[in-house]
Amino acid sequence: MRPVALENLMCRLAPQFGERLIDLREAPEQQRRVNQDASHAPPGDGAALVLPKSTAEVSAVAAAAQEFGVPMVPRGAGTGKAGACIPATGNLVVDLGGMRQLLSLRPADQFAVVQPGLITEQLDLAAGAAGLMYPPDPASWSTCSLGGNIATNAGGPRAVKYGVTARYVWGLEVVLAGGEVVRMGRQCLKGVAGLAMAPLWVGSEGTLGLITEATLHLVPAPRGVQTAWLSFASPAAASAAGSRIFAGGIMPRMLELLDDPALTAVRPAVGWPMPTSAAALLVETDAHDMEAARRQMERLCELAAPDGAQLASDGATAEAMRQTRRLVSSSLKALYPQKVSDDIAVPRSRMPDLLEQAQACSRAAGIGASAYGHMGDGNLHVNFLCRTVEERQRTVEVRQALYRWAVAQGGTVSGEHGLGLTKRAALDIEFRPESLRLQRRIKKLFDPHNLLNPGKSYAE
Amino acid sequence: MRPVALENLMCRLAPQFGERLIDLREAPEQQRRVNQDASHAPPGDGAALVLPKSTAEVSAVAAAAQEFGVPMVPRGAGTGKAGACIPATGNLVVDLGGMRQLLSLRPADQFAVVQPGLITEQLDLAAGAAGLMYPPDPASWSTCSLGGNIATNAGGPRAVKYGVTARYVWGLEVVLAGGEVVRMGRQCLKGVAGLAMAPLWVGSEGTLGLITEATLHLVPAPRGVQTAWLSFASPAAASAAGSRIFAGGIMPRMLELLDDPALTAVRPAVGWPMPTSAAALLVETDAHDMEAARRQMERLCELAAPDGAQLASDGATAEAMRQTRRLVSSSLKALYPQKVSDDIAVPRSRMPDLLEQAQACSRAAGIGASAYGHMGDGNLHVNFLCRTVEERQRTVEVRQALYRWAVAQGGTVSGEHGLGLTKRAALDIEFRPESLRLQRRIKKLFDPHNLLNPGKSYAE
Repeated sequence: MRPVALENLMCRLAPQFGERLIDLREAPEQQRRVNQDASHAPPGDGAALVLPKSTAEVSAVAAAAQEFGVPMVPRGAGTGKAGACIPATGNLVVDLGGMRQLLSLRPADQFAVVQPGLITEQLDLAAGAAGLMYPPDPASWSTCSLGGNIATNAGGPRAVKYGVTARYVWGLEVVLAGGEVVRMGRQCLKGVAGLAMAPLWVGSEGTLGLITEATLHLVPAPRGVQTAWLSFASPAAASAAGSRIFAGGIMPRMLELLDDPALTAVRPAVGWPMPTSAAALLVETDAHDMEAARRQMERLCELAAPDGAQLASDGATAEAMRQTRRLVSSSLKALYPQKVSDDIAVPRSRMPDLLEQAQACSRAAGIGASAYGHMGDGNLHVNFLCRTVEERQRTVEVRQALYRWAVAQGGTVSGEHGLGLTKRAALDIEFRPESLRLQRRIKKLFDPHNLLNPGKSYAE
Repeated sequence: MRPVALENLMCRLAPQFGERLIDLREAPEQQRRVNQDASHAPPGDGAALVLPKSTAEVSAVAAAAQEFGVPMVPRGAGTGKAGACIPATGNLVVDLGGMRQLLSLRPADQFAVVQPGLITEQLDLAAGAAGLMYPPDPASWSTCSLGGNIATNAGGPRAVKYGVTARYVWGLEVVLAGGEVVRMGRQCLKGVAGLAMAPLWVGSEGTLGLITEATLHLVPAPRGVQTAWLSFASPAAASAAGSRIFAGGIMPRMLELLDDPALTAVRPAVGWPMPTSAAALLVETDAHDMEAARRQMERLCELAAPDGAQLASDGATAEAMRQTRRLVSSSLKALYPQKVSDDIAVPRSRMPDLLEQAQACSRAAGIGASAYGHMGDGNLHVNFLCRTVEERQRTVEVRQALYRWAVAQGGTVSGEHGLGLTKRAALDIEFRPESLRLQRRIKKLFDPHNLLNPGKSYAE
């Protein structure tokens, strides 16, 4: 028996949405799909699913949901790593994946206007055809959507040089709880009039409202890119090489660490002759022309002094190297189905200490660990390689200790994934009470009845 | 006779601040100084001035001000162009210029921690000594302070490649109305936990609280920089050249337009053999090494096809060229003491139209105009060259029309200066009512008794 509020909401929306309004009890496939994401969080328990096609429809949904007091969870492509889009019992899932148009692309003005469901890679491809690039490149970029990228402030390997999603959001159209449509920001490079509200939404994990449109900044695509795979005897040696690269004034556009467990896990899946080593750095340089990118790469390799360096001789090899990095998470997951992936970030000089801390935590819990990822950002995916739920339980305490250590360094419990459901236990580690209180007051201002993704991230 | 509230506040603060608490009626020099900024706004009427030396002191001031209900105006170096720091009658001016320490600089971690009163150029020089750069470079950079830069989200010529202040603010310590101290953000490259509150403060023009500390991102200083002065027959020809440069995939680090009135005004002050032309572009390229910067500049010049190009052969000439650009505003002001300077920004492809609109407005008002500045950002300083207050009055209507046109293009009434006092008449042009309402509700959340810079920018 469904609660009356939900029943009333369904009745109200049914005439407008028809088959795009789904009772999840009657649609097991959709039920499975929308009750999960790419995290290890247990499946949710959403009651209904609606698939709007326009801002006006999203607004109608939000108005009705507020009228009947039914909480909503906005959903993109479901590739999140923290459970932020997993519905609680009785929630209405608002799937924005059907709103996936590239509304406009203006090369001379360096921006695109997109709907939230557009796949990230699709925007980058369209930009590329115009000589431009959309830099944020999360590992899931061929399946994740821009609305989700904005809601989680997604990063990716190129962030070391180009920054994360926040840098590229010029403007947003959002639907507030209650259905009001508000536009924030603008469609030009600079603007300082009034309060900058759009940045507040970037990384807000669906807690403030529903993003229905975004104006995103594009940058000129560098014409020269060089990719190389550098082998090292240990993650510590790779980390020291990273420090020398930055100290030498080189700003790579990618500096990704793969440690032994990561390399071992991914090896069967790679489509190129990947060298054998205990650690590797995947590095890229880019510049206005190929010659400049080449010179940067030469200098980078001199500074890094790896045990071995393999330059990608063509685009296919470069892409195979990048794909190797992207496959690490799923390859580890196949071997360790209950693995836990953190995304600690610290000031870059603390990287050797982070590697040591991860090993110490691994020993303390008696569970293997892998630390790989965005070394250039000071942001590593520390994975505890659990095969069972029991093993995962054993990591809870050491992970909390790791979070406390990272925050004490000036770092964060989450460099990329967000808090969602899975990292809410770290709330009091990351934030002092007065900061958390302010965040919750801002949430209340936008969503006074707590109908937008309640209980996620910082929200009560 | 002073109001009782102010009298009580002064009594409360006197023991703690001694000579650093000043009754402005008794200190004519300080009174003159803190009642103005670099805008054409009429002088303010502040009642008292306090010069805190620490966060704790700022907090004590904010607590007492709230207790007695006295409004405060935070003040940096007073170089603002919109009157945002000009006190209203009876306000307490909180001058943060005495808090000007560089608290730490961590090259390997690419950040610095600063107090708000530190001069912008001082940070860039300290960063430079460590092989790094602090990119934001407003024309006033040798006299403006970082707290003010943050409060106004300052830009500058390098913004075309490096973006404005917002991109460089990793974390803030702020004092709220009532005295609570809150820290926002972090000290590492990435972090997505919770709501991003710090960006809300960037550009908030002192309406949300007092910034007492900032963690600012530094980037590797490019080792190759090339500077050149390109001459054109008209601003329209320079604008067309700018479009060709970007379409050709070149990302200059500076692309500044000077038109005929700007060139004429600045000519007597320049320290290098500046060519005679009706328009000029000051351009810079930068790269990891000099050779790459040179190749970019060659390509830029090919694409721009100017009537004449003068490359800066040494650092002194390059600096003289940059200084020429920085002197435009003050040189025009010397000739036209009542000049009004706008800072319209539009999508870059609308640049030719902006130049035309400025001319049309100039004709309609019967007042000469100069349009110069950040052509690469789509952000021009449209100046109406008024000698008298009466002339300035004649520009009011055409400027409103110009604002409406810019906003209709997706642009803004203020690309750099902010709304402050002088551009509040454009509030309803820039914002729809629902956006303005939200901004004011956010202000109310941070400052429920409206004690922080009331009546400025978007605030009631």
